[in-house]
Amino acid sequence: MVNNNLLYLYFSIFIFSFNTHSQDTISVNDSIDIMNVMTFQEKAWNNGDINLFMEGYLKSDELVFSGASGPVYGWKAIKQRYFNSYPTLESMGQLTFSVSKIKSLTPTTAYLIGEYYLKRVIGDSFGHFTLIWKNIEGKWLIISDHTSSSK
Amino acid sequence: MVNNNLLYLYFSIFIFSFNTHSQDTISVNDSIDIMNVMTFQEKAWNNGDINLFMEGYLKSDELVFSGASGPVYGWKAIKQRYFNSYPTLESMGQLTFSVSKIKSLTPTTAYLIGEYYLKRVIGDSFGHFTLIWKNIEGKWLIISDHTSSSK
Repeated sequence: MVNNNLLYLYFSIFIFSFNTHSQDTISVNDSIDIMNVMTFQEKAWNNGDINLFMEGYLKSDELVFSGASGPVYGWKAIKQRYFNSYPTLESMGQLTFSVSKIKSLTPTTAYLIGEYYLKRVIGDSFGHFTLIWKNIEGKWLIISDHTSSSK
Repeated sequence: MVNNNLLYLYFSIFIFSFNTHSQDTISVNDSIDIMNVMTFQEKAWNNGDINLFMEGYLKSDELVFSGASGPVYGWKAIKQRYFNSYPTLESMGQLTFSVSKIKSLTPTTAYLIGEYYLKRVIGDSFGHFTLIWKNIEGKWLIISDHTSSSK
């Protein structure tokens, strides 16, 4: 499942790379690095491991997560929000990410528009997000996550 | 009203400028330029002028607006979405922006977390947003707007 998603993501990157000619096109290498972080998060989530999932986010008070109830600041508070919102494996379900758009802002910053889908026995949940990424010492991390839940 | 907001925004910038020491602090000049675009948008909206309001966004197919129903791409499509969502002066109401956080990503890119409030006779509406800004030929413009409506 994860491997199929990864293939899909790589295919998407291929399309992005050859379909756009603007200066804000992201390099294939950077796209792959970012997609690898997302696949890592997907896998951690699907193993019920929110602590590991949180490794995709910058560990900083500057990190911001904007959900339905407004922005939450700081890596610790955001992790706690995930624990509160998804207290059980059933509430977490099985996560699939998909990516609509990824754009470079500068060689070390990018933004990404994507969707999530949680397959759950208690009822599926899905929505879309805008992520801002920063490359810090060679590692791409999310510095801002604005997520809208459709259900 | 607009002048009071502007003063509030300037005061906020002042706080931002002296309260943070990280490398991603935005310059006072850039903050003021961005706040001026937001005040311009606020004023245009409150005059019922969606066309003028749209001048705060980059006129590009790359522009993305993510609302409750998912992302909409392209300046024209996004303008049309505003016309569809706010067909009358009553539905537009009186807009007030407030800003929680503004951060530089690079000298020519920034992101901003803020809130909007629409005072309306048909019932108020409010929510929060994450904006990505780009300075293009000396002018700051929104390239990505993810807005969550609370009501």
